[in-house]
Amino acid sequence: MTRAGTVKTVTSPANPLVKAARALHMRKNRAETGLFLAEGAKLVRDALAAGWPPTMVFAREPATDDDPAADVAAKVRAAGGDIIFASTAVMEKLARRDNPQTVIGLFEQRFADPKRLNKGTLVAIEEPRDAGNLGTIIRTVDGLGGAGVLLIGNTVDPFGVEAVRATMGSIFHVPLARLDRAAFTAFAKRYRHPIIGTHLCGTTDIRDLSPSEPQMLLMGTEQSGLTDEAAALATMLTKIPMAGTADSFNLAVATALSLYELRRPFL
Amino acid sequence: MTRAGTVKTVTSPANPLVKAARALHMRKNRAETGLFLAEGAKLVRDALAAGWPPTMVFAREPATDDDPAADVAAKVRAAGGDIIFASTAVMEKLARRDNPQTVIGLFEQRFADPKRLNKGTLVAIEEPRDAGNLGTIIRTVDGLGGAGVLLIGNTVDPFGVEAVRATMGSIFHVPLARLDRAAFTAFAKRYRHPIIGTHLCGTTDIRDLSPSEPQMLLMGTEQSGLTDEAAALATMLTKIPMAGTADSFNLAVATALSLYELRRPFL
Repeated sequence: MTRAGTVKTVTSPANPLVKAARALHMRKNRAETGLFLAEGAKLVRDALAAGWPPTMVFAREPATDDDPAADVAAKVRAAGGDIIFASTAVMEKLARRDNPQTVIGLFEQRFADPKRLNKGTLVAIEEPRDAGNLGTIIRTVDGLGGAGVLLIGNTVDPFGVEAVRATMGSIFHVPLARLDRAAFTAFAKRYRHPIIGTHLCGTTDIRDLSPSEPQMLLMGTEQSGLTDEAAALATMLTKIPMAGTADSFNLAVATALSLYELRRPFL
Repeated sequence: MTRAGTVKTVTSPANPLVKAARALHMRKNRAETGLFLAEGAKLVRDALAAGWPPTMVFAREPATDDDPAADVAAKVRAAGGDIIFASTAVMEKLARRDNPQTVIGLFEQRFADPKRLNKGTLVAIEEPRDAGNLGTIIRTVDGLGGAGVLLIGNTVDPFGVEAVRATMGSIFHVPLARLDRAAFTAFAKRYRHPIIGTHLCGTTDIRDLSPSEPQMLLMGTEQSGLTDEAAALATMLTKIPMAGTADSFNLAVATALSLYELRRPFL
């Protein structure tokens, strides 16, 4: 049985626990501690449902027993997490904004072993740099039933506050792995299934694919699409049909449209 | 023949022209003047190509004749726009950030008459609030060859700097119209073609649609989807197939997937 977490009350924004948690807004501190923040009762509930309980939650002192913060706090405590009941000033400090959520959870980061993503439809992305895009992609991969997201090279941190917020809770459901470029090349060479790259010069229209799982969707960078190095690893280069004058789609949109076609027979 | 624009040089960030242009970062000032800013040589070129020349451009004094800023400035001037060659300090002030683009254009806003959007596939959205989402949607509508975007009710400003940036130039190509709720209801009642609403409780899977143009895709709010009032105006409610644990898609992603299916036979 899990031992129930402890309960404390903190009213000073200068409290060391508050300062340490607030420091997780910075990537450097997330990398050093292996921790991250997720805001809101919905996300903390999603995490509990996914078997990823928070180490600690900061919650506004519940006004009544049926306050959602009270319910979330009780569940977190039962799962072994510590509860810090905090003043509004503390919550604002922690969230770094006015009108913060009533609950903010502190979690351990989890990265999957890429070898375990050898099933279903895996989405690999070269160096995504925009936190909102990456969070939206993780949410979309969840919604379309993808097997996971593989981050290649120097990417934005998926555990940053903005990325986590954009996932709307899917951060706790979609396995994430990361590989540097050399390791990804080795991984792709050993991958025995189709690797479908999306490329402006692709010759196969995504409407003409005959998808079969396992498969990997390989997406390029936000600025200039797939690098030649990554394109060479694809077993097929596809393109999204376009009209109008736009010369490309936003990365999250391009990923959604491609993944949708690859998952279309399986949804 | 259009009369060529004037050329000036400004080095002081306190210059009244700079202050007036910078004020366009605020919605209130855009509403009062009917003007907006678009950053970057690419966007100014897109605007010229679309027959929507800037009233004025601010450009960093070109270092050489083949500097892109020189080329853009010459074209804008030929189209009758005024050129302000500006110091880096002025450009930073205007862009409100470090490392500003080398060209920033000042344009008149244009809204289309909704009656003129009675062809192709029109995308109507209830109260989008996120600038990045709206800009991404405009870019996607361009890329998938939609006829225009109809903004319903209280929406984020499509001519805000962040929204314009997210359109990647499609702001100059996609007709935008706006209607308050009552006017939209009247418009939808007079619209003699299919109105396809995307709804979590929709009964028709988007893969099973038989699209025909003209048609209207009707998307709900970011927080809670279509209002009952808007859903009642749809001739059909569809749903996007989902898997996994996510309970919805990001608005720009949901719009892209739905529009893609509606435009699939025509691409």
